[in-house]
Amino acid sequence: MTQARTYTVDLIAGDGIGQEVVPAATRVVDALADRHGFRVAWRERQWGSAYFFEHGRMMPVDGIEILSDGDAILLGAVGHPELPDHETLWGLLIPIRREFLQYINLRPVRVLPGVVSPLRGVDDLDIVVVRENVEGEYSAVGGRVYRGAAEEFALQEAVFTRTGVTRVARYAAELAASRSGSLTSATKSNGIIHSMPFWDEVVSSVVEDYDGVELKSVLVDALAAALVLRPHDFDVIVASNLFGDILSDLIAALAGSIGIAPSANINPPRDHPSMFEPIHGSAPDIAGKGIANPTGQLWSASLMLDHLGEPAAAAGLMSAIDEVMAAGIRTADLGGSAGTEDFTAAVLRAVASS
Amino acid sequence: MTQARTYTVDLIAGDGIGQEVVPAATRVVDALADRHGFRVAWRERQWGSAYFFEHGRMMPVDGIEILSDGDAILLGAVGHPELPDHETLWGLLIPIRREFLQYINLRPVRVLPGVVSPLRGVDDLDIVVVRENVEGEYSAVGGRVYRGAAEEFALQEAVFTRTGVTRVARYAAELAASRSGSLTSATKSNGIIHSMPFWDEVVSSVVEDYDGVELKSVLVDALAAALVLRPHDFDVIVASNLFGDILSDLIAALAGSIGIAPSANINPPRDHPSMFEPIHGSAPDIAGKGIANPTGQLWSASLMLDHLGEPAAAAGLMSAIDEVMAAGIRTADLGGSAGTEDFTAAVLRAVASS
Ligand SMILES: CC(C)[C@H](C(=O)O)[C@@H](O)C(=O)O
Ligand SMILES: CC(C)[C@H](C(=O)O)[C@@H](O)C(=O)O
Repeated sequence: MTQARTYTVDLIAGDGIGQEVVPAATRVVDALADRHGFRVAWRERQWGSAYFFEHGRMMPVDGIEILSDGDAILLGAVGHPELPDHETLWGLLIPIRREFLQYINLRPVRVLPGVVSPLRGVDDLDIVVVRENVEGEYSAVGGRVYRGAAEEFALQEAVFTRTGVTRVARYAAELAASRSGSLTSATKSNGIIHSMPFWDEVVSSVVEDYDGVELKSVLVDALAAALVLRPHDFDVIVASNLFGDILSDLIAALAGSIGIAPSANINPPRDHPSMFEPIHGSAPDIAGKGIANPTGQLWSASLMLDHLGEPAAAAGLMSAIDEVMAAGIRTADLGGSAGTEDFTAAVLRAVASS
Repeated sequence: MTQARTYTVDLIAGDGIGQEVVPAATRVVDALADRHGFRVAWRERQWGSAYFFEHGRMMPVDGIEILSDGDAILLGAVGHPELPDHETLWGLLIPIRREFLQYINLRPVRVLPGVVSPLRGVDDLDIVVVRENVEGEYSAVGGRVYRGAAEEFALQEAVFTRTGVTRVARYAAELAASRSGSLTSATKSNGIIHSMPFWDEVVSSVVEDYDGVELKSVLVDALAAALVLRPHDFDVIVASNLFGDILSDLIAALAGSIGIAPSANINPPRDHPSMFEPIHGSAPDIAGKGIANPTGQLWSASLMLDHLGEPAAAAGLMSAIDEVMAAGIRTADLGGSAGTEDFTAAVLRAVASS
């Protein structure tokens, strides 16, 4: 009898509906693991706002170290009505992204069966945003001068390095090569922004090495417009931290809901664990009611399985979601009446019968 | 007999279709002037790429000085396939915006009669974006270090001043007060961007002084999504230079075409001339064919008339455009067969019969 492959995954359910959708995901992943001959050793981390109220921080001082020997992190959501985003994000999400050099934020978007795109005549979409995740417009450099005075000003430094742009461009080019070969780079090099001509140069020199990948650089303002007017022109989009943040939410909305989209924070060299999280928040208004849609969390778990090297299980999870959605089983956010448990049970049945 | 009010307007038709749509606008404005008892003294400036090829610059060295005693500037478009944007924008458009402290970039968006929004079930939209136009993410501060080397990095400093944020917030609040009272501020204060909590503080303290204006601060990523999912929730949107750039193109697309949207670069204290320009570019692919849609230029001229203190003429121009569009007279970009001249002639007839 062979020993099953085992992956160690840290589980941070976090706040609000995170506590409901993360357990849904672990049950489904366990079921897939059974069928596909691997095992997940879950390590539950009771971190987040509840931890903050007790300990004055979102995770232990050595939180990063604790996570560092795992294979992946599955995150629910962080955010609490009584805590500033500043605490909840900077105390947990952002340090994990940065300390583990998760320099890729991957955001696939599809219109799931039964979901209606807000765009006329659009019933399918299949776009992946590759967002730079550790530098760019989100650098830690900046601050405020003469606070409170009439002369006050605030500075925020955007920092783009050749290393940082090269690696995200390479990741995106490889992804594009494995898909249609079409790669769009979001830029703003026609104006004053000093960093974007540099971005353009690095991206195009990286992409030159990839035969069969065709690069289009599109100004971010024109790109936002084009996504709405001609969404089928786009397949893989590579973008800076801020541009990727805006464009991926826009595209998720074009697919009908930002409540179901997943994201992966990836450290491609695998020197550190990667983190998988839905793009929705902790949704305190519906937390505890058992009505949250677990799709974003399940989809994120599918990205995790793919990353761990279990593509068949990852694909099986997506087919199960598609099947359940196609059968009309929907949560309240999509106009249905299924609860989190009903939806999860249906996904488990679909996995079992596949 | 009284002397007619006279406004001195500098005319920079510029490149490509600018040469076709600007003359259309001057004819229509002259017709309106006749009916409304004022006169426009046009000063034609043959600046732009043709000027560049002859003189090595987009406008004379003393271009700004030449424009400085006018009442307004009507700009067509700048941009030439053989010139980098760097030259065409930095040689003309950007210096005018900055030297004349045109710190408001006003971008009204409506669905014109006969134009179809790409959004399902949306047949009207009426949103104005008030974009900060001289500071923020577009500051001149920044550059590249170790050019060409592996260690190369690029910096771009975003600069937000209390003066700059206060004045754009005030303008937006006044506009909101004159409309529905709803004001949305685009922010990104949940992350790391040091300048945005400052933006939020200044905007909300300014808006407090305006009874009846209700301010919502929305994260720019969520706002891009919400605009697509619930566009009718928005009326006046105030945004930083970069966020306003992206959001206004997005919203123009939601109204069916970015080819017809106008913009005004305004210096509210009127210490300097303001500039009015369509948001479309020089469109070299269709230039010289007589098929360009002059609507963006005409709409920009309407904003100019309003700014000059001729609101009745401004409104008359918009009614004339609406009437022509409602009659089904459309240029090729909107699926019609009317040329620039046909469309302009129809607008002139509508003005004459109003
Ligand atoms: C041409 C470019 C510099 C400009 C900008 O970003 O301001 C344009 O996109 C605009 O919106 O007028
Ligand atoms: C929470 C916030 C800092 C974050 C970001 O902008 O990165 C979020 O919008 C996201 O996209 O994950």
